[in-house]
Amino acid sequence: MSIERIQAASLALRNNKLFELFVVFVIITSALLIGAKTYHIPEHIMQLVTWLDYSITAIFLFEIIIRFIAEENKKRFFHSFWNTFDSLIVVVSLIPIEDSEMALIGRLVRIFRVLRMVSIIPELRLLLNSLVRALPQLGYVLLLMFIIFYIYAAVGATFFADINPELWGDISISLLTLFRVMTFEDWTDVMYETMTIYPLSWIYYLTFIFLTAFAFLNMVIGIVVNVLEDEHAKEREAKDEAEGKMSIEDLAAEIQELKALLKQKS
Amino acid sequence: MSIERIQAASLALRNNKLFELFVVFVIITSALLIGAKTYHIPEHIMQLVTWLDYSITAIFLFEIIIRFIAEENKKRFFHSFWNTFDSLIVVVSLIPIEDSEMALIGRLVRIFRVLRMVSIIPELRLLLNSLVRALPQLGYVLLLMFIIFYIYAAVGATFFADINPELWGDISISLLTLFRVMTFEDWTDVMYETMTIYPLSWIYYLTFIFLTAFAFLNMVIGIVVNVLEDEHAKEREAKDEAEGKMSIEDLAAEIQELKALLKQKS
Amino acid sequence: MSIERIQAASLALRNNKLFELFVVFVIITSALLIGAKTYHIPEHIMQLVTWLDYSITAIFLFEIIIRFIAEENKKRFFHSFWNTFDSLIVVVSLIPIEDSEMALIGRLVRIFRVLRMVSIIPELRLLLNSLVRALPQLGYVLLLMFIIFYIYAAVGATFFADINPELWGDISISLLTLFRVMTFEDWTDVMYETMTIYPLSWIYYLTFIFLTAFAFLNMVIGIVVNVLEDEHAKEREAKDEAEGKMSIEDLAAEIQELKALLKQKS
Amino acid sequence: MSIERIQAASLALRNNKLFELFVVFVIITSALLIGAKTYHIPEHIMQLVTWLDYSITAIFLFEIIIRFIAEENKKRFFHSFWNTFDSLIVVVSLIPIEDSEMALIGRLVRIFRVLRMVSIIPELRLLLNSLVRALPQLGYVLLLMFIIFYIYAAVGATFFADINPELWGDISISLLTLFRVMTFEDWTDVMYETMTIYPLSWIYYLTFIFLTAFAFLNMVIGIVVNVLEDEHAKEREAKDEAEGKMSIEDLAAEIQELKALLKQKS
Repeated sequence: MSIERIQAASLALRNNKLFELFVVFVIITSALLIGAKTYHIPEHIMQLVTWLDYSITAIFLFEIIIRFIAEENKKRFFHSFWNTFDSLIVVVSLIPIEDSEMALIGRLVRIFRVLRMVSIIPELRLLLNSLVRALPQLGYVLLLMFIIFYIYAAVGATFFADINPELWGDISISLLTLFRVMTFEDWTDVMYETMTIYPLSWIYYLTFIFLTAFAFLNMVIGIVVNVLEDEHAKEREAKDEAEGKMSIEDLAAEIQELKALLKQKS
Repeated sequence: MSIERIQAASLALRNNKLFELFVVFVIITSALLIGAKTYHIPEHIMQLVTWLDYSITAIFLFEIIIRFIAEENKKRFFHSFWNTFDSLIVVVSLIPIEDSEMALIGRLVRIFRVLRMVSIIPELRLLLNSLVRALPQLGYVLLLMFIIFYIYAAVGATFFADINPELWGDISISLLTLFRVMTFEDWTDVMYETMTIYPLSWIYYLTFIFLTAFAFLNMVIGIVVNVLEDEHAKEREAKDEAEGKMSIEDLAAEIQELKALLKQKS
Repeated sequence: MSIERIQAASLALRNNKLFELFVVFVIITSALLIGAKTYHIPEHIMQLVTWLDYSITAIFLFEIIIRFIAEENKKRFFHSFWNTFDSLIVVVSLIPIEDSEMALIGRLVRIFRVLRMVSIIPELRLLLNSLVRALPQLGYVLLLMFIIFYIYAAVGATFFADINPELWGDISISLLTLFRVMTFEDWTDVMYETMTIYPLSWIYYLTFIFLTAFAFLNMVIGIVVNVLEDEHAKEREAKDEAEGKMSIEDLAAEIQELKALLKQKS
Repeated sequence: MSIERIQAASLALRNNKLFELFVVFVIITSALLIGAKTYHIPEHIMQLVTWLDYSITAIFLFEIIIRFIAEENKKRFFHSFWNTFDSLIVVVSLIPIEDSEMALIGRLVRIFRVLRMVSIIPELRLLLNSLVRALPQLGYVLLLMFIIFYIYAAVGATFFADINPELWGDISISLLTLFRVMTFEDWTDVMYETMTIYPLSWIYYLTFIFLTAFAFLNMVIGIVVNVLEDEHAKEREAKDEAEGKMSIEDLAAEIQELKALLKQKS
């Protein structure tokens, strides 16, 4: 009986708008705290910051426990990505920061607590889901782009390695240099350097820019077309359902009845 | 009686096309004057400029008074954003420039008088309104983008602060540095610097660029889809209204009449 | 009689596919000649180049005369923008290059002869026409963008002129600097410089970038929507005309006939 | 009889999913090998690499022979672009790397073996085909863009050659410099340099940027519109076929029958 009561109370608390607002407020405080820590803080305020940090961890722990108790089917709780994410963030937050080895992870986890904003606001969660769903559709374009990058990086590392090992030393450095060329960041400096040895190497850069730009353009258009089609499909369905309009088939049925009437009469 | 006459005269003047053209001309003169002041001007011409400045302020004051008198419902006058904006600009323009403390604000307000061009040309007002209306639709994407920025800035300020305090000193400087990275402005210099200490920090920059580029792309597509849908909706309505076409429902009604005729006959 | 014959012959020559191909060939030769002149050429080849140049001018003169004679309505000849453009290019080409004063114009005109490619290929003419037609639709967005530029340039020239007169000396230099900031070209160097005096000047640059990027985005979307609408309208018309489908109105007429038949019988 | 058996066995092997997976695995190994070669490798591992290289060439040779035997119509085999491409890659791979003269080509061909990934994965082949098909539609826009580039390059090489021969020496260098300006890469440095001699040369750069940006925008929109139209056309066809809906013509036929019935009765 008492367990059921606790669950009911947890459910009530979880669905309470004020409690949700309070959690959002705590997350924002947590984010501001992370920002504040990057400034030089006097010793006595530092203690307040540490104390606040512990309180936030405690509140987050309390909130995740409430949500776990409120869940009817305990097994399904960790099926939700965001529940697992929140639990992980809270558990790792419990690691004391003082431990120098784990301090790094402790600090990183505190920063990632800002992502709880996404888990608590449904609109952001939806937005992120739709972004993630759009990725696999682009899989083959990304693969094609990577093949282009890889071939150019291999050619670059083969021919330009002796000219400037810092840019073309091996294939991974070459990939980074090519990404830089794609963002147009001082790409002419890279080109002019290799043109002193291979005067025709501008062909290498120009074809690379054209190929990646073209593939990127194709990717963007792919997303736009997909999104627009989804929108159109939704729109059409909504229209059909909402209006309940007569179709040409309904008319044909009416005319059939007319024919039957006429035949019956004669 | 006399008050009503003044109001009628004001209304006539306000709606006068020539008066409107005159005001546009004064605003353009005001804009040119602001431009002229940025050049070195001989002393005697400076006097002309100051005199012109006073005249423009006087004309603007006169115009806003005319508009206020012309308005039937005085209370509604300040409900319009542009009326309030114009009044504010004119009132602050009355502050003498000589006052060294207020001089700065006085000069700024004179520059913002160019914005009166937007308040006087209806097409520009419409355009700006549509731009402002598009913003809230993008609210959640902007929030998501800010969360991404904030997390990366916190990570950057935590790990790279000692490498280059001018770029990563605290979270606000880090945010500015990340905006710079997003615009691809010398972002490789920033990256190569941190790669000397953390050789894997290229992951930090590449993921950041991909995430922001992807979120930005999503935002742009969001606007395009919204705008296209609005256009389609308008188009459809316009078509339906303008053509007054017969619907399938009208046809069905006709067939029903036919049936009634047939039944009646038999 | 003889004049009519000349006109007929001219018309035949103008519409001759081979003659058109020959003119295209001459234009390409003219373009290659312009390119060749930018290299260092030995004296004896230079003479050939000069001779070729005269021949091209002569052929162009001949071609424009043929086209003028072929035109039935001589008055309408100069109504076409491209006819006027071609005539002007040819006439100015007749100026001898030796004249040092006019040499500059002579050389420029020879370069612009490449544009005759546009006037001779109908597809390019159509393309350019559609580009020019798209411009006025964007008039108000461009005006709004210029107002944003002008206000920021005035503010920049007022506050930053003493920091770096080469970038912010007067309003026209400031406009150029702002265009540079919009293209993200070393914009952080410009910003860091003013931030040493006004630490908050990053607000100036970030708001400027957001406003212009947003206005630019709006402009692009404006073009896309316009183009898509035009395409849709064309498509719909083409469909309606080509298929000659029965409309619901046709059906209604048929049903009316039926009713008349029934009534007549009873 | 035996030949037919070999062909049947080859066909079975070619269509075997496991064999296809094995070939993909060999291509990936080949790609990794190319990457590995760009690092400094100890002598004894180098031997393994060389041995692996020979094995890959042998496997590729075996696979192409299998595919050739499996093909029923031997003449049609080389009609496929990808079959020819694969055969060429394999044949040139047979050249021994030791030969110093041909070594360069041998290494390049080994890199291009990565492109076999495209030839083996049907989705990538489709994607590349659609990219290539999109190109000719843009032919005229690309031609117009080249004309703009050529004219500006000719003007640049004529006027700025003496200011900086490395950037404006002749028309081909000028074309490269203009491409750099179009990517906004340090374009202000190029501009400020020429502005010291020709203070109005900013007009040259700004008009060039506007023209190319506008033409580029037009090209992108052109692709988007084409792609969207294709999608719409496909969608419409799919809808019409799948649903098999009654058309207004069918209704009209029904009404015609009704009329015939009525007339017959009277």
